[in-house]
Amino acid sequence: MPSAIPGFHAVVPAGGAGTRLWPLSRAGHPKFLLDLTGSGRTLLQATVDRLLPLTGAGGVLVVTGARHAVAVADQLPELGADDVLAEPSPRDSMAAIGLAAAVLLERHGEDVVLGSFAADHVIDGSEAFHRAVREGVVAARAGYVVTLGIAATGPSTAFGYVRSGALLGLDGAPTVAHASGFTEKPDAETATAYLATGEYRWNAGMFLVRARVLLDHLAAQLPALAAGLREIAAAWDSHARGEVLERVWPGLTKIAIDHAIAEPVAAAGGVAVVPGDFTWDDVGDFDSLAQLLPGDTLGDETAVLRLDAAGAFVVPGAGRAVTVLGLPDAVVVDTPDAVLVTTRAHAQSVKSAVDGWRAAGREDLL
Amino acid sequence: MPSAIPGFHAVVPAGGAGTRLWPLSRAGHPKFLLDLTGSGRTLLQATVDRLLPLTGAGGVLVVTGARHAVAVADQLPELGADDVLAEPSPRDSMAAIGLAAAVLLERHGEDVVLGSFAADHVIDGSEAFHRAVREGVVAARAGYVVTLGIAATGPSTAFGYVRSGALLGLDGAPTVAHASGFTEKPDAETATAYLATGEYRWNAGMFLVRARVLLDHLAAQLPALAAGLREIAAAWDSHARGEVLERVWPGLTKIAIDHAIAEPVAAAGGVAVVPGDFTWDDVGDFDSLAQLLPGDTLGDETAVLRLDAAGAFVVPGAGRAVTVLGLPDAVVVDTPDAVLVTTRAHAQSVKSAVDGWRAAGREDLL
Repeated sequence: MPSAIPGFHAVVPAGGAGTRLWPLSRAGHPKFLLDLTGSGRTLLQATVDRLLPLTGAGGVLVVTGARHAVAVADQLPELGADDVLAEPSPRDSMAAIGLAAAVLLERHGEDVVLGSFAADHVIDGSEAFHRAVREGVVAARAGYVVTLGIAATGPSTAFGYVRSGALLGLDGAPTVAHASGFTEKPDAETATAYLATGEYRWNAGMFLVRARVLLDHLAAQLPALAAGLREIAAAWDSHARGEVLERVWPGLTKIAIDHAIAEPVAAAGGVAVVPGDFTWDDVGDFDSLAQLLPGDTLGDETAVLRLDAAGAFVVPGAGRAVTVLGLPDAVVVDTPDAVLVTTRAHAQSVKSAVDGWRAAGREDLL
Repeated sequence: MPSAIPGFHAVVPAGGAGTRLWPLSRAGHPKFLLDLTGSGRTLLQATVDRLLPLTGAGGVLVVTGARHAVAVADQLPELGADDVLAEPSPRDSMAAIGLAAAVLLERHGEDVVLGSFAADHVIDGSEAFHRAVREGVVAARAGYVVTLGIAATGPSTAFGYVRSGALLGLDGAPTVAHASGFTEKPDAETATAYLATGEYRWNAGMFLVRARVLLDHLAAQLPALAAGLREIAAAWDSHARGEVLERVWPGLTKIAIDHAIAEPVAAAGGVAVVPGDFTWDDVGDFDSLAQLLPGDTLGDETAVLRLDAAGAFVVPGAGRAVTVLGLPDAVVVDTPDAVLVTTRAHAQSVKSAVDGWRAAGREDLL
């Protein structure tokens, strides 16, 4: 086990419905609460398992919606009651992570470095992950917003990219470089061109920064949002929390942290990249889930019969027998109240099924 | 309504598991007990509905397996207790129909003409059907085994064919012709050649014959089987039925009526063909079922969402929502304990799913 990094705290935003994994993932039981790898641990649990050795006990803070707070606490008995922050309503990632930063600053003071890691990603390679975080914390202490740049395994069009510039040359962080900018998800040709330069890595949305630096950037970019979060954080561990939350939270600006901080700060030279040479996946759809798993079944293999359908991906999630005949590229997801039949090539379109059922008035299925 | 034909009795063999319609059709709840057309009537009920006007009340005799006798009687309250013959075990179609013929002869005497009509076929066009039966009965009274030859709608390779020869020239049966022979299911080229001659029609396995003539043919071809059936029939409406059945039934020859009677008698010139210019389908698989239905759903259309999957055939048979995305030729059959996902092109292979689950020891699914 690695030793804990002094002053380092992990923030785990646990949100998002994972609609491209519907009907496995639902609004009321989203992706991060599911064991999608068959490991016996949910994505949230695996995320916390990966982080606790780096932070030490009490060093992980989960930020989630009020409707999921009980489920999150149930899945993470190793966390204390103060380690789960419940948002009254979704206000996007800047409010979630900014709240965590402000609370950490209140609780632990100016030296806190936070790392933000989504609750619903899959990482394989703890050692490389731990090394990247350690180097990143060094650069964060030096004042940078440090993003983890994942070694791309191919020209994916499903992820954004971060471009590395010159090495920072920091002691204890030999691989950390300046970030010269972020890109949105590219088309395949552009992605291939990116990789050919050797300068681009996947932007996995994981970053490290001093809480104080993050909040100062926020105060510069969005002063009202920064002030609101500071007011809430000051009241968080007091009897006033409920009153302040009720009054301030609904008015907070809804914005993603990438747009609020990462992009403008990168343009100003304040973002660094630490290379992460571990396997990472955001398990964005059933095709990526299928590629992640050792077999082609998530669940009880004996409940599945494939005939002329080798490689068909099946989730027998309702205790029923699933037969796939003549469709090698099929995806079949069976749940107690909904079954989805599609193909791997259509995996990115599964969100449209959620839209379709919503349009049909079937909120019960979402 | 047509008037009843004096002395005419209909025999409805209700057997067969319909394995190509699995998991809708099961050994314990086979095809003939299902409403496959969405009409509100099962195939068995629709068959009896079609026949009762021609026979009059009390004129339909259903022959089925002992395990289905209660379900058959439940579905047909218009039938009397004597109108359902329960076979102790399956001994193929010759024993089933021969038993019915022998019982009819015991009950109603020498003038009985029987027509045999499978319980799991779909017919559209009552008037043409009734006309064909009426003409066929005339030819049956004249001593022929009369088969209904269905006007082919295309060169199907799923059905056998019957070839017509010269007209019999019987009064009251102007369209009935000699049958010059039967063929097995042909390949596509052969089927096309058949249709080009204008002499071939589909052999739907429906035929009309005097009970006495049928049993005499049987006595000539398979005397032991004929004697066994005669002995059982003589005891059927007495206290001795159970004892005789138990003793004689297990030893009866298992043979299809086509091989036992139709083919040898045709070779000897004793078979006639009455043209049936109605729509007929044996609903042999999900592709033919899909073509039969007005829409692409058997069941609650609001339980189905098709996206980039127009024409996908769905049976939402478990009260769950079924989504098909990106598979226009899919077949999805959802039942409480089993879901089948395949394509229309693989419809004929569905039997292999039944074989596969049997090999896996899952008799509960069959």
